[in-house]
Amino acid sequence: MSDVVKGNAVIGQSGGPTAVINQSVVGVIEAVAGFDAVDRLLGARHGVRGMVDEDFVPLDGLDAGRLARIAATPGAALGSTRDKPDDEYCRKIFQVFEKHKVRYFFYIGGNDSAGTANIVNDLANEAKYELRVFHIPKTIDNDLLVTDHAPGFGSAAKFVASAVMGDDRDNASLPGIKINVIMGRNAGWLTAASVLARREEGDGPHLIYVPERVFDVDRFIEDVRATVGRLGRCQVAVSEGIVCDEEMEVHKDDGSVKRVPKPVAVKVAEEMGIPLERDRHDNIILSKLPLGQFLADYLEKGVGKKKLRIRSDTFGYLQRSFAGCVSPVDASEAREVGRKAVELAMSGDVDGSVAIRRTGAGGDYAGEFFRAELADVATGTRPLEEEYVGEDGNDVRESFRDYAAPLAGELPVIAKL
Amino acid sequence: MSDVVKGNAVIGQSGGPTAVINQSVVGVIEAVAGFDAVDRLLGARHGVRGMVDEDFVPLDGLDAGRLARIAATPGAALGSTRDKPDDEYCRKIFQVFEKHKVRYFFYIGGNDSAGTANIVNDLANEAKYELRVFHIPKTIDNDLLVTDHAPGFGSAAKFVASAVMGDDRDNASLPGIKINVIMGRNAGWLTAASVLARREEGDGPHLIYVPERVFDVDRFIEDVRATVGRLGRCQVAVSEGIVCDEEMEVHKDDGSVKRVPKPVAVKVAEEMGIPLERDRHDNIILSKLPLGQFLADYLEKGVGKKKLRIRSDTFGYLQRSFAGCVSPVDASEAREVGRKAVELAMSGDVDGSVAIRRTGAGGDYAGEFFRAELADVATGTRPLEEEYVGEDGNDVRESFRDYAAPLAGELPVIAKL
Repeated sequence: MSDVVKGNAVIGQSGGPTAVINQSVVGVIEAVAGFDAVDRLLGARHGVRGMVDEDFVPLDGLDAGRLARIAATPGAALGSTRDKPDDEYCRKIFQVFEKHKVRYFFYIGGNDSAGTANIVNDLANEAKYELRVFHIPKTIDNDLLVTDHAPGFGSAAKFVASAVMGDDRDNASLPGIKINVIMGRNAGWLTAASVLARREEGDGPHLIYVPERVFDVDRFIEDVRATVGRLGRCQVAVSEGIVCDEEMEVHKDDGSVKRVPKPVAVKVAEEMGIPLERDRHDNIILSKLPLGQFLADYLEKGVGKKKLRIRSDTFGYLQRSFAGCVSPVDASEAREVGRKAVELAMSGDVDGSVAIRRTGAGGDYAGEFFRAELADVATGTRPLEEEYVGEDGNDVRESFRDYAAPLAGELPVIAKL
Repeated sequence: MSDVVKGNAVIGQSGGPTAVINQSVVGVIEAVAGFDAVDRLLGARHGVRGMVDEDFVPLDGLDAGRLARIAATPGAALGSTRDKPDDEYCRKIFQVFEKHKVRYFFYIGGNDSAGTANIVNDLANEAKYELRVFHIPKTIDNDLLVTDHAPGFGSAAKFVASAVMGDDRDNASLPGIKINVIMGRNAGWLTAASVLARREEGDGPHLIYVPERVFDVDRFIEDVRATVGRLGRCQVAVSEGIVCDEEMEVHKDDGSVKRVPKPVAVKVAEEMGIPLERDRHDNIILSKLPLGQFLADYLEKGVGKKKLRIRSDTFGYLQRSFAGCVSPVDASEAREVGRKAVELAMSGDVDGSVAIRRTGAGGDYAGEFFRAELADVATGTRPLEEEYVGEDGNDVRESFRDYAAPLAGELPVIAKL
């Protein structure tokens, strides 16, 4: 086949948005403008949903000022989707691509999106239709395979660290026990990033719990009690997805049933006799269970509330969408993975996912971009690596700070009297 | 009495901290350095608690760089307290002041702190002990009497507006119903500030509910349904303190019982048969009741969840403590009320609270500082003014944007495709 295939290009955004997901759209728009091979660049409204519905918005002719403002805006400017296409859905996407003479497909998302891109790519190969497919990584959860880290994580890490830093000073002002519940249902990367808030002896977070280790409530109460004994207060960072040593069944989209570790929130609700609400797949709706409040209630019984106020916050959607809290490194890399996807797609008949390799460390951090196989990124997710979790399972190691600090970038000033 | 009374000065911080409360401490430190009348400036640890315990930290000799960093740090650098001193407690404070030759007392806090300052001042007057007492205003709730606004509010307003702006783009990405619960139990100022996030037609927040108007659940469901019909989604800003048209009893610290409007969260919990937890005064613990979840549950029944995801976030303590989200105007005014308190205290045998008068409007905004009577500030709180609440009770008027915009300062860039 020829090195240059002329046709249209489609770009879409998928899954939970991030603070920098539009940087990647703008990166693609900017890079595409430099290649004659692309006739028109079409934005699919709400990801794959807009592809099958032929709901496209032309992305040509936007001026640089507008592009810069869109890049700086959180949320998915094209709209996102929770649809996880099966083979039939992907077939429809491919048919629309053929109809609209689409030769380049850029899909910004997590590992499910890499999977979708991979299926569409296979369909094109089978049909001997030249389609160059690139997955562009994004997720605040940072749980993608192959890449060192995912665009979106750095800004979310900056938000979490800034929130925990300020909250720690608030907690020191009015000493008590404070539980902060952080996003990341199956991976502890973002919760671990709370460690960036800790700079001096005595700073919070004093305890960090990630879903990669079994959470033991009695041990938790002991940990908090010890911290309160030492400092007169305790600030806790805990992943929304922490699990206990039991299992439960979940029903997958394809009808299969899988046994998974039981979330602590489910165990507590069962113990307390709180009715569990279930979705149409008969899976427990976890967002209905207030983990922070559950843990606070446990501590009231275990540590005693007489002397210390016990409070909890769930950081929620602000972690991925707060306007004005962006890591410059993250923003720049999110733009670059978009540009790189276009460059790779123009380099020959290749497909893949853009991944980041770390070069240098600490102040010398730099990211390098390379092509990964779609299938390698699509196959699964990456938990927080074992080497980063502390021995006692209630903290993360300094090596994780070295990993995360350059991604989150400069943090606010904190000083004490 | 003489114009200049020589002695020591005490400064303390009280109540819920803000992002700029340390600006006022630094303002006092800076200004005191210019007056020979003050021998030593003592910081009381944890407000009145540190005064009765004689737990003081010297605040002399801190270099300018360190002061600048402390000023920029959220939370109360001296520690804060929830203690509300009665006459006996105030008598102890006064005794400590006599013992330590304290002639200047600066207390940063809300209206309760103005009340404490007022009682201590009365005791000094009775004893013919010259003590110059100044209350320095702070509260994210913005519910102080006399002053146009309170330092701390502007930065909290910026946080809320930034959060709602980003969350609105997130909600537009994956259309659904989103409820954001905002601080301010008895006053709607901060919830109203969410309107700053709305800049173009169709932007959220689409509905704003403050505690100054009775909240009717059926009407709420209608409001949301209408917005969803128009826009396919709905973002709601609601005060944690919204009330229904029933009353309930609360037991005050002094043993008296008062009838107050019943919070919506309490009414819903009663209807749902959720047990109400009570504190040692037998008052319902409101923070245990997840208002956002309650409203989401109502909407699931009333609007239907089949088509739209319904989610809620409670912004929590981040509103007053998030590091790195400060309004420059707010920071500067918080510094200035500290300086002004010292200047006024040095101007003669006067006492009072520093208040802010607004001069100019919009881009021409400027604040002017003046002395208010302690008693006038101590007597009560100020609800969101009626003129700012929209006709239907589900929004705030443009006049409120004019009021709040200069206080919150510049907001992040938002652009759409």
